[in-house]
Amino acid sequence: MTDEHTDSDRETFAHDPIGHAEVRAGMTVEELTAEYGDGGIGASALHEAVDIYSEMLDDDVTNFLGLAGAMVPAGMRRIVADLIRDGHVDALVTTGANLTHDTIEAIGGKHHHGDVVAEDTTPREHDEQLRDEGVDRIYNVYLPQEFFTTFEKHLRAEVFPDLEDEGSVSIQRLTEELGRANTEVNEREDIKEGPGIAAAAYEHDVPIYCPAVQDSVLGLQAWMYSQTSEFMLDALADMTQITDIAYEAEQAGALVVGGGVPKNFVLQTMLVSPDAYDYAVQLTMDPPQTGGLSGATLDEARSWGKLEKAARNASVYADATITFPLLVAAARERIGE
Amino acid sequence: MTDEHTDSDRETFAHDPIGHAEVRAGMTVEELTAEYGDGGIGASALHEAVDIYSEMLDDDVTNFLGLAGAMVPAGMRRIVADLIRDGHVDALVTTGANLTHDTIEAIGGKHHHGDVVAEDTTPREHDEQLRDEGVDRIYNVYLPQEFFTTFEKHLRAEVFPDLEDEGSVSIQRLTEELGRANTEVNEREDIKEGPGIAAAAYEHDVPIYCPAVQDSVLGLQAWMYSQTSEFMLDALADMTQITDIAYEAEQAGALVVGGGVPKNFVLQTMLVSPDAYDYAVQLTMDPPQTGGLSGATLDEARSWGKLEKAARNASVYADATITFPLLVAAARERIGE
Amino acid sequence: MTDEHTDSDRETFAHDPIGHAEVRAGMTVEELTAEYGDGGIGASALHEAVDIYSEMLDDDVTNFLGLAGAMVPAGMRRIVADLIRDGHVDALVTTGANLTHDTIEAIGGKHHHGDVVAEDTTPREHDEQLRDEGVDRIYNVYLPQEFFTTFEKHLRAEVFPDLEDEGSVSIQRLTEELGRANTEVNEREDIKEGPGIAAAAYEHDVPIYCPAVQDSVLGLQAWMYSQTSEFMLDALADMTQITDIAYEAEQAGALVVGGGVPKNFVLQTMLVSPDAYDYAVQLTMDPPQTGGLSGATLDEARSWGKLEKAARNASVYADATITFPLLVAAARERIGE
Amino acid sequence: MTDEHTDSDRETFAHDPIGHAEVRAGMTVEELTAEYGDGGIGASALHEAVDIYSEMLDDDVTNFLGLAGAMVPAGMRRIVADLIRDGHVDALVTTGANLTHDTIEAIGGKHHHGDVVAEDTTPREHDEQLRDEGVDRIYNVYLPQEFFTTFEKHLRAEVFPDLEDEGSVSIQRLTEELGRANTEVNEREDIKEGPGIAAAAYEHDVPIYCPAVQDSVLGLQAWMYSQTSEFMLDALADMTQITDIAYEAEQAGALVVGGGVPKNFVLQTMLVSPDAYDYAVQLTMDPPQTGGLSGATLDEARSWGKLEKAARNASVYADATITFPLLVAAARERIGE
Repeated sequence: MTDEHTDSDRETFAHDPIGHAEVRAGMTVEELTAEYGDGGIGASALHEAVDIYSEMLDDDVTNFLGLAGAMVPAGMRRIVADLIRDGHVDALVTTGANLTHDTIEAIGGKHHHGDVVAEDTTPREHDEQLRDEGVDRIYNVYLPQEFFTTFEKHLRAEVFPDLEDEGSVSIQRLTEELGRANTEVNEREDIKEGPGIAAAAYEHDVPIYCPAVQDSVLGLQAWMYSQTSEFMLDALADMTQITDIAYEAEQAGALVVGGGVPKNFVLQTMLVSPDAYDYAVQLTMDPPQTGGLSGATLDEARSWGKLEKAARNASVYADATITFPLLVAAARERIGE
Repeated sequence: MTDEHTDSDRETFAHDPIGHAEVRAGMTVEELTAEYGDGGIGASALHEAVDIYSEMLDDDVTNFLGLAGAMVPAGMRRIVADLIRDGHVDALVTTGANLTHDTIEAIGGKHHHGDVVAEDTTPREHDEQLRDEGVDRIYNVYLPQEFFTTFEKHLRAEVFPDLEDEGSVSIQRLTEELGRANTEVNEREDIKEGPGIAAAAYEHDVPIYCPAVQDSVLGLQAWMYSQTSEFMLDALADMTQITDIAYEAEQAGALVVGGGVPKNFVLQTMLVSPDAYDYAVQLTMDPPQTGGLSGATLDEARSWGKLEKAARNASVYADATITFPLLVAAARERIGE
Repeated sequence: MTDEHTDSDRETFAHDPIGHAEVRAGMTVEELTAEYGDGGIGASALHEAVDIYSEMLDDDVTNFLGLAGAMVPAGMRRIVADLIRDGHVDALVTTGANLTHDTIEAIGGKHHHGDVVAEDTTPREHDEQLRDEGVDRIYNVYLPQEFFTTFEKHLRAEVFPDLEDEGSVSIQRLTEELGRANTEVNEREDIKEGPGIAAAAYEHDVPIYCPAVQDSVLGLQAWMYSQTSEFMLDALADMTQITDIAYEAEQAGALVVGGGVPKNFVLQTMLVSPDAYDYAVQLTMDPPQTGGLSGATLDEARSWGKLEKAARNASVYADATITFPLLVAAARERIGE
Repeated sequence: MTDEHTDSDRETFAHDPIGHAEVRAGMTVEELTAEYGDGGIGASALHEAVDIYSEMLDDDVTNFLGLAGAMVPAGMRRIVADLIRDGHVDALVTTGANLTHDTIEAIGGKHHHGDVVAEDTTPREHDEQLRDEGVDRIYNVYLPQEFFTTFEKHLRAEVFPDLEDEGSVSIQRLTEELGRANTEVNEREDIKEGPGIAAAAYEHDVPIYCPAVQDSVLGLQAWMYSQTSEFMLDALADMTQITDIAYEAEQAGALVVGGGVPKNFVLQTMLVSPDAYDYAVQLTMDPPQTGGLSGATLDEARSWGKLEKAARNASVYADATITFPLLVAAARERIGE
């Protein structure tokens, strides 16, 4: 274990020393993430993500947000809605599931904390019992199935009829109408929860794209309505609009929360644009080793030309229900909002 | 560490003993999976999966196959095509990416082994260089971008024109036409690779559903073609057909390889059917702890009514590029094909 | 999708609604974790962990801390040292690696940020080059090998000689002597970094246990010294001491950061104690699905009698370099330190 | 999406095409892994691992096997014992847990399949009930606690007394004596299970190292015995022996199953040897992104000089209870055993 390396080897070694993070009572979230920057592994990745996302919140950057499936049931709805309301999202790509659960909350429905809070532990028998009780489980979140009935009524009364006369409509047009309806119903006195993501997007003219809308209860309802009406969804229509947003962006940034279709749709938009993302941050729990798109590094996306060669990018491999609020709180503090 | 439990406690303990797996040169794959059944953890899960999938291959079971994104670049194309040709798939739900890569191989394009075979290690600089060389990376698989040009020509010459006259078409109709074109082009003498998944489905009248088709290069090409033609894709049209298949199934089984939209679309089909899956096997690398649908247990799906309360189900948490061939080889041996 | 469940079903449904987390610039870390409590999945688990750990910091709870391997290179050294200095650790179980890296920093050595900050991407060629340059890599942290030479000199001059005369010594006695030596050398004017974990433990009479000490550079050095001296380490001697601490605890709590030997040694101590842990929190990135101890749920530990049946426990499945600082900052704020 | 790359770019592209794996009923395990070699992601990694491990089984290679914790409860006991009996292991590094569970089986105790076979789902209530019934859970494996009493008797009657007179003994000496005792007791007519790993190692003069032996029930028993006897374990003594094996190896290979201390101890042995591993294969479910040693790539180990710069190495990120039997069966077939 002797070291034969000479000083001249050392001269070529120009790396910053690791500091040692310090935490104290009452520190702000940004102060915590500054401490992360002293460390390594995921801590340094999160610090880098805060640094990049703060730059992305600059007015000159056009921001795409990819939001995967269970974020609304997990309580991330208001953070997304507030980002939209504050002008920090220029295009949202999400799932039909998130829009379904967002709407259920908008119309007075409720998700609930399941019995199991901290451990991954619900057995077959438990799920059989939930089935008997009419309760759907999303990991440790429970949703009484009756709210899907309320959701169906809302869609059939407030959302689909207006679209029927427009013939074939884009999916973005459906999400816009959903946002309008959620805004209006949320003004009823008996509904106290905020109107949510679709409503915020509607009010602030932010388009929501949902490529796999048919893969959700929202999509199932749309299909059932289409069976007895002229209502029809055009699968390709939105791509002109989202491509134009990418095309016109001076600088473009992508915040990708979770993987799946939202991640890929955000990234692939740059395949038909002369430029690519200048900034990209992803928060994911999927490891790259599976080879799937969800966990793929952002460097891989660079080989495809989805990121500029000179882009700043960071991937944080940790539970997004923890890192997403942390990132947003820290970046907001950085830019002084 | 004394044990105060009496014999009467023990009488209520009726579990099978763990055996100890034995392996030897020349054993068949099915013999290996039989040994797995002696063990615990993932080995026992895989054995259970083989047991269930063997039952699913019975003639009376209608089989849905969900196939997530990188399976074709990872070399799983022929296994899927052979399952279709042998009558073991009644409906395939997959991604636009898989159909894109399947078609690239069908028309003579090639994916390649990247430099890095066994480790997860490709640095930013490496991806920058691949970008310069015009090579797209999918983990450890390389795809020269020129094949996307060949793909575009194929679509514009052989696939889209025939659909143009049909007005708004379903996504399944697009995949069917793709299968026909892939079958025909693959008969050219200079193309030696098999015609693949879409072709097998076309030839054997197996429908392919692809809810998020716009989230792929196939989708981008479809959109570009639609800009200058009457070609149009109906997002909702397929749901009648897939629901009918579920409705008419005496017994239904789901094999889910990877997560994402294919997994959910296969499972959610049962939400609008009086019955649910009697058998379900998933091969995934996503852990349930993320709370996302991709890693969710099949027991969770039972709470939603996507699986029958009495269904047999197994989840194998391991790399699907390893477990999928293993499962299929073992199940084929079991049923004596 | 009709819902046939009646109100009487609903009456039995007594779960708290999910709230929707809200974040804002300038919020404190504890305020952030309070918002996590509104959500589900990992966010709720982390909130529960803060809740439990705050109770554990009460004076009446005897706290065991398990600290796995790469936490010191990742910059978590000061947080651990501060917890010790503030009386929040009654017994520390860690690895020889952490003590090695802690000591390297104490004597003026430095870990460094590697080239790769946010992505997991260092190729074989890169590691070959680091080998040539005499730099060891720990994920994205670099350590020049020359510091192992300094470390060796420190051990041979300041640590081992004093122990030699004591005959066979316990591992805890070695770590104590290491702490004394680190304290003293750190007073030299040219060393500015804090004396660290072993030093804090020495100064505050907190025992450090390191069951697999031979599995580290510290252990290799101890072995080489033992070759030419009477120095000898007793593998079993510490167990009396740690068992006594567990035995005498009115209430016992375990904070487990990472898995491996530190986790198991902390937990197994209760197998020879009439009582078990009343509180337990683990921060891990290992999923339970591997079946290994590192990712095993704390509920599993309950079946063994390592946790009281009535214990409060939470497992957070996310990168511990992110969650450990977050947990400590929030809990410190809760108890008003 | 045009491709401007010319033929001259292409000339520098010299990668092998991905083939498409084919599976059929009755194929052997080696034939299956040959098909993996056509694919990418984990399949290609496993194929590479088979290729390397087959070379390692050559007579001229000195083989180290690292075996982490839950492999014996998971049913991998006989595969390890058979490798030892067939001369394919020159040094085994494992955990006290594996030796404990190996011995429990050797003396007639039994692990059992838990209720939950395929899903990760055992709730807190379930573990509370197991506690009441005196059953310990290891993921989906159950172990009645009464077998620990039998284990204690075996150790106190057959293992510890002989060692007592030897004064301070190495841990390897303890495992050797355990092997002898397991061999002898297993000859009793009422015990039908094979004598197992420790016995095979004893009979074939293969040393077993267990650096963290105190971190197990075996270690707890050793400690309790040491309280009332002269029995004493020397923590450092084994390192001379294992280092000598490494030193004398013409060529050295490491097969690492799982992470933790066994992995690191196998690898670090080369830090005090002039040479390093020529071959290394690891089977792990821990991703590198955690920064811990358990999931670290073998390339990282190269930077430390634990692997030769020119070494062949492969990491398979998938459940080792699946990949370990697969690897061994395929490699045995390759070498014609």
